[in-house]
Amino acid sequence: MALIVQKYGGSSVADAESIKRVAKRIVDTRRGGNDVVVAVSAMGDTTDELLDLAGQVAPIPAPRELDMLLSSGERISMALLAMAIHSMGFEARSFTGSQAGMITDSTHGAARIVDVTPVRLREALDEGAIVIVAGFQGFNRDTRDITTLGRGGSDTTAVALAAALNADVCEIYSDVDGIFTADPRIVPKAHKLDTVSSEEMLELAANGAKVLYIRAVEYARRHDVLIHARSTFSSGEGTLVLDEKRRAALAQQGDGMEEPIVTGVATDVGQAKITVIGVPDVPGKAAEIFNIVAKSGANVDMIVQNVSAAATGRTDISFTLPKGDAATALKALAGEQTSVGFESLVHDDQIGKLSVVGAGMRTHSGVSATLFEALSVTGVNIEMISTSEIRISVVVRASDLAEAARVVHTAYGLDGDTDATVYAGTGR
Amino acid sequence: MALIVQKYGGSSVADAESIKRVAKRIVDTRRGGNDVVVAVSAMGDTTDELLDLAGQVAPIPAPRELDMLLSSGERISMALLAMAIHSMGFEARSFTGSQAGMITDSTHGAARIVDVTPVRLREALDEGAIVIVAGFQGFNRDTRDITTLGRGGSDTTAVALAAALNADVCEIYSDVDGIFTADPRIVPKAHKLDTVSSEEMLELAANGAKVLYIRAVEYARRHDVLIHARSTFSSGEGTLVLDEKRRAALAQQGDGMEEPIVTGVATDVGQAKITVIGVPDVPGKAAEIFNIVAKSGANVDMIVQNVSAAATGRTDISFTLPKGDAATALKALAGEQTSVGFESLVHDDQIGKLSVVGAGMRTHSGVSATLFEALSVTGVNIEMISTSEIRISVVVRASDLAEAARVVHTAYGLDGDTDATVYAGTGR
Repeated sequence: MALIVQKYGGSSVADAESIKRVAKRIVDTRRGGNDVVVAVSAMGDTTDELLDLAGQVAPIPAPRELDMLLSSGERISMALLAMAIHSMGFEARSFTGSQAGMITDSTHGAARIVDVTPVRLREALDEGAIVIVAGFQGFNRDTRDITTLGRGGSDTTAVALAAALNADVCEIYSDVDGIFTADPRIVPKAHKLDTVSSEEMLELAANGAKVLYIRAVEYARRHDVLIHARSTFSSGEGTLVLDEKRRAALAQQGDGMEEPIVTGVATDVGQAKITVIGVPDVPGKAAEIFNIVAKSGANVDMIVQNVSAAATGRTDISFTLPKGDAATALKALAGEQTSVGFESLVHDDQIGKLSVVGAGMRTHSGVSATLFEALSVTGVNIEMISTSEIRISVVVRASDLAEAARVVHTAYGLDGDTDATVYAGTGR
Repeated sequence: MALIVQKYGGSSVADAESIKRVAKRIVDTRRGGNDVVVAVSAMGDTTDELLDLAGQVAPIPAPRELDMLLSSGERISMALLAMAIHSMGFEARSFTGSQAGMITDSTHGAARIVDVTPVRLREALDEGAIVIVAGFQGFNRDTRDITTLGRGGSDTTAVALAAALNADVCEIYSDVDGIFTADPRIVPKAHKLDTVSSEEMLELAANGAKVLYIRAVEYARRHDVLIHARSTFSSGEGTLVLDEKRRAALAQQGDGMEEPIVTGVATDVGQAKITVIGVPDVPGKAAEIFNIVAKSGANVDMIVQNVSAAATGRTDISFTLPKGDAATALKALAGEQTSVGFESLVHDDQIGKLSVVGAGMRTHSGVSATLFEALSVTGVNIEMISTSEIRISVVVRASDLAEAARVVHTAYGLDGDTDATVYAGTGR
C-alpha cells in the first residue's frame, strides 16, 4: 500500500461541483489501495476576498490577525472536501495547520516550516481515514499563534507532509497537465514534459513557470520528495520532478533518458528594470547601491554594469526586480542620491524576461549562440543577459516576449507535433 | 477598573462599516478605563451561507466537519474586528474557541460547555490588550476536535466568559434597545424594560422573545452573571437581567422596584399543533404516544387531553411542538397507529402562542381572568391553555395572534406613552 500526498489549489476547489469532482478523484486513489493525505487551498478567490475585507477595516492589518483571517479560507475548503468524501462512504477527517503539526517560525504572512509532527495524521491514517489538511497555514509553538506560509504555501504544505510522512509521491494538482516546455498560452507548440530534473524545475519556477512554486521544489529536493505535477481535469500522467538519484536510476533502466540540452523556455513579465545613471566609477559604489535596495526589502534578480565612460569616470548600473518592489526601491535609492552620488534613476516596467533552461548546457557548447541567433534573426533586441550553470536569461521588450519565446522554442527543437493549448488550461 | 464582556451578533458585524462601528464602541469602553473581552458571531449571513455550501457537497454533512466549517465564520469576524481595533491604536488579540479555553463535550452541533480555562485571555488582559473571542465555538479535550454550541451559541460564549473571568457585567448587543414588554413589531405600544428578573427572562425567551437565548440566560443565572441587553446602534441603557439577589439589593436601595404583576407578553408563531384523534381511553395510552414523539426527537411544549366521550370510550390528545419537528413526529406516530389504536392524526401549523409572564403572578390572583376577558371581548378563540408559576400561555389562531397581543398588552396596563417601533430594530 502506497502513501500518496495530493495537493489541490484554489481553482480545483472553486465551488461545490469542483469540490465533489476532487472528492471523487481522492476516493478513486483510495480505492486504488493507497493511503491518501490531501493538502487543500482556499476556494477560488477566497483569499483575495478576505484580503479585500481586511483592507476595508484596517489600512495596514495587524499581521497576527491577518494570518488568523486568511487561515479561515482553508478551513472552509477542507471541511467541505472532507464532508463530500464522507458522503461518498469513505471516512475522511480534516485538520488545521496546527492540528496537523505544521510548526513554523513566527514570521506572520511568510512563515518558514521548522518542524512537522503529524501525530494526528498518522493516527487517522492508521484508523483507515483519508486525511485532509489545510494548506498554507501553520502554528508557532512559542507564541501559540496561527501563521501562514505566504505565496505558494499550499504546495509547500503538501511537500512538507510528504517528507514527514515518507510518502511515495506528492501529487500537485492544478488546471494544467504538467510542466510544459513553455507556457502554452504563449507558445502553442509547447509540449508536456514527462520528467524534469529538480534543478531544472527550480530554474524554470524561479524564472516565470507558474505550475510549481520554487519553495516547494526546493523543499522537495532537500527532503527527497518525488513531485508529480498533474491536472485536476484529466486522468493522464503529468510531469515527474526527479532528483539526480532518481534520474540516474531511470537512466540505468534504459528508459532512453538522454539528458536534453534545453528542457524548457520560461517567460516572465513580472519584473521591472531600474537603471542608476551616472554612478561614480569607484570601488564600493555597487555595494552601496545594492545595500540600499536590499534594505528596502526588494529582491534583485539580474544586474548589469556598463563599462565606464573614460571621459566622465561614471557608469550606469541596471538591475531587475519584481514589479511590486520597484516603488519602494526607487524611493530608497532617491533618498540616498547625494551620499551615493549618482545622477538619476530610470524606471522601466515594460520588460520581459526569457530564460532557456536545460541540464545539458553543462556539457554542451553553442547553446547561447543558438539563442542569440534566433533572436537576432527575428529582430528582437537583447537588453540584459544573465546565466547560470543550466540557464541563460535575456531581458527584452515586453512586447517582443511572446514572439521571442516562440522562435527560441523552435530553434531548440522543442516544438511538439500538436497544439498544446488544446490540453493545457489557463494557468493555476 | 471593571472587566466588561461584550457580545456582538452577526447583524452587528455584517460588513466592514459595521465592524468599524463596533470597534469604535469597544475602544470607547476601553477608553472608559475598563478591561474588555468581546465574544463575536460570524458576519451577517455567513453561517447560513456555509450551511448552504455544506448542503451542496453532502446531503447529510459529517457533524465533525460541519463544526470545522462553521467555526471558520467567527474566525473571519474576530480577526477583522481585532484588526479594526488595532488600526485605531489599541492592542487587540483574537482567540478561537480552543485558544480561549472553551472546553465542551463532544456533541458536534450542540456542544455543552464543560469547563472554561481562559489562561491566554488573562495573559492578554494583563498585557493591556483588548481580547476578542470567537463566539459559538469550543473544543473537546478527548477528541481534540472543534465543536460548536448550536443556536444562540455566541450569547452562551459571552456569558461563560463573563463567569470564568468574574466580569462585572456581560453586555449582549443586538439591533434592539433591550427587552421589551412585547415584540414592538407586533405591539407598537410595547416599551423597554429597565430590568427583568432572570426567571421572567427565561419564560420570555422560552416563549418566543428573541433578544436573548434561553441557554445563555440559564447559564448566567446559574453562574451569577449580570446580563445587560443593549443596542449596537444607540448609547442608551438597555435592560438589566437581574437574579433574585441583585433584585433584592436594588429593592432595598429603595429604587421603587415593586414587582410588576405582568412584565411582558411573548408571542411565538414557531409552533405547530398535532391532534391524535380517537385514542382508547385506557391507562398508559398518553405515555405510549409521548414516548413515540420523544423518540422521534421532537420537543413537546403544551399538551391538552379532552374528556372522554362516554359513548365511544375514546378521547383526543393535542400537543404543540416546534414546526420543524412536526413532520418527523407525524411519521413516527403514523407508524405506530395500529399498536396505539388511535383513529387519525390532524396537523395544524396555523397556530400562534401568546404568553403572559410576570413574577408577581405568584402573589396576585385574577391574572388569568384579565387575559381571558381581554381575548373574549376581542373575539379571539382560545384553543389550548398552559401555565407555570409565573406564566400563562394560550394557543390561538396564528391570524389572531397580533391583535390578541395588543389587547392583552393594553389590558395589563403595559402600554407605553410612545410608539416603540421608533426605537426598536427588526430583531436580532
